[in-house]
Amino acid sequence: MNDLAPNSPPLRVLITTGGTQEPIDEVRFLGNRSSGKLGVLLAFAAADFGYEVTLLHGHSSISPSAHPRVKTIPFTSTRDLKAKLDELWPSHTILIMAAAVSDYTPKGGQVEGKLKRGESMTLDLASTEDIVASLAGNSREDQRVIAFALELQDGLHIAGRAKLIRKGVDAIVANPLETMESSEIDATILLKDGSELSPPEQGSKAIFARWLIENLKVVTGLTSQGK
Amino acid sequence: MNDLAPNSPPLRVLITTGGTQEPIDEVRFLGNRSSGKLGVLLAFAAADFGYEVTLLHGHSSISPSAHPRVKTIPFTSTRDLKAKLDELWPSHTILIMAAAVSDYTPKGGQVEGKLKRGESMTLDLASTEDIVASLAGNSREDQRVIAFALELQDGLHIAGRAKLIRKGVDAIVANPLETMESSEIDATILLKDGSELSPPEQGSKAIFARWLIENLKVVTGLTSQGK
Repeated sequence: MNDLAPNSPPLRVLITTGGTQEPIDEVRFLGNRSSGKLGVLLAFAAADFGYEVTLLHGHSSISPSAHPRVKTIPFTSTRDLKAKLDELWPSHTILIMAAAVSDYTPKGGQVEGKLKRGESMTLDLASTEDIVASLAGNSREDQRVIAFALELQDGLHIAGRAKLIRKGVDAIVANPLETMESSEIDATILLKDGSELSPPEQGSKAIFARWLIENLKVVTGLTSQGK
Repeated sequence: MNDLAPNSPPLRVLITTGGTQEPIDEVRFLGNRSSGKLGVLLAFAAADFGYEVTLLHGHSSISPSAHPRVKTIPFTSTRDLKAKLDELWPSHTILIMAAAVSDYTPKGGQVEGKLKRGESMTLDLASTEDIVASLAGNSREDQRVIAFALELQDGLHIAGRAKLIRKGVDAIVANPLETMESSEIDATILLKDGSELSPPEQGSKAIFARWLIENLKVVTGLTSQGK
């Protein structure tokens, strides 16, 4: 199924999925509701398509069952994810950043032990490093980065387009916030050249994942559309 | 295996497990690292022992596989857990409160939509209702409540004993914080009468769960020790 030339090695795809956990103390953390489902489906679809796949998955996301061509590595915090991406990105060609990365982390880092119960507490949060912008900014000519934008339906395309430029990525999967915990997806892909791509029909995350992987080279500009 | 008189109906045991998630906005939440493993093992052991069991489990905890005598109900936030406990507690005799309940929740409740990324953020938290103290305080004569204390090994028994009195419960499973994400457990049970019970040997959570259920009536004072 892969349209690579017979002698070229398969492209290596790096996919992140699930949510980060920013530790507050040894028990509590700041998390997010990402199930990690879409990223796992993308990883399996990419492996089935013939790509070599590395899947970085969050701690509380659905556990990626075994696939002979998918290497899975867990991550915890934003910092941990960044360290693993820094190590893995140079040996991959395409990054699909489906993970839900925390924008904030507790100032001063994790408290040792367990904070005591009290009447109230103020949690001072600092913004985390912008991982996807940093990776996109440090990519080689042959590398491509796809990011996700989860925004309210109203203004989704404008917000997604702004994010594409701000992060310096090659494509944005723009996702309405309203479909977050649904098994369906209603996404549009915004490309760097200003164009948009939508699947022929909206449907399950599995169908969307397969469609995105089949069109991965067009989406990332590694092959022009129509070739 | 159940030592109930042949004609008495089986005792109904209500078990909570896993962590609460306090929503910050539609994506982010305040969570905790509880896996929910011990509570699921307790539920299965109790069902095998002949009790009727209802298991309230957190959203991100391990998913409780089917057991013919365990009824499972998911919970999300502390508030949601409290509402479900208020409804279920009257029809049960023993409550085993293994869930990791957040002490704090964002002041003013959940923000609609998704908070925008910024340089920093201050999260004002208010203390949640003390669920276990409230339930223990509103229990009937025939009902018993077991709570958990997760504290640093140093001072564990003193902190556990203080918690037993403060919450007004019948027993506390005192757990060192150091064994949190381990599959082993090193717990002691502190009883209302001032005595302590420990399993004959420390070991896996499965062995501990079975031992606790076999001794449930002694632990809760429904049967005196030695009878």
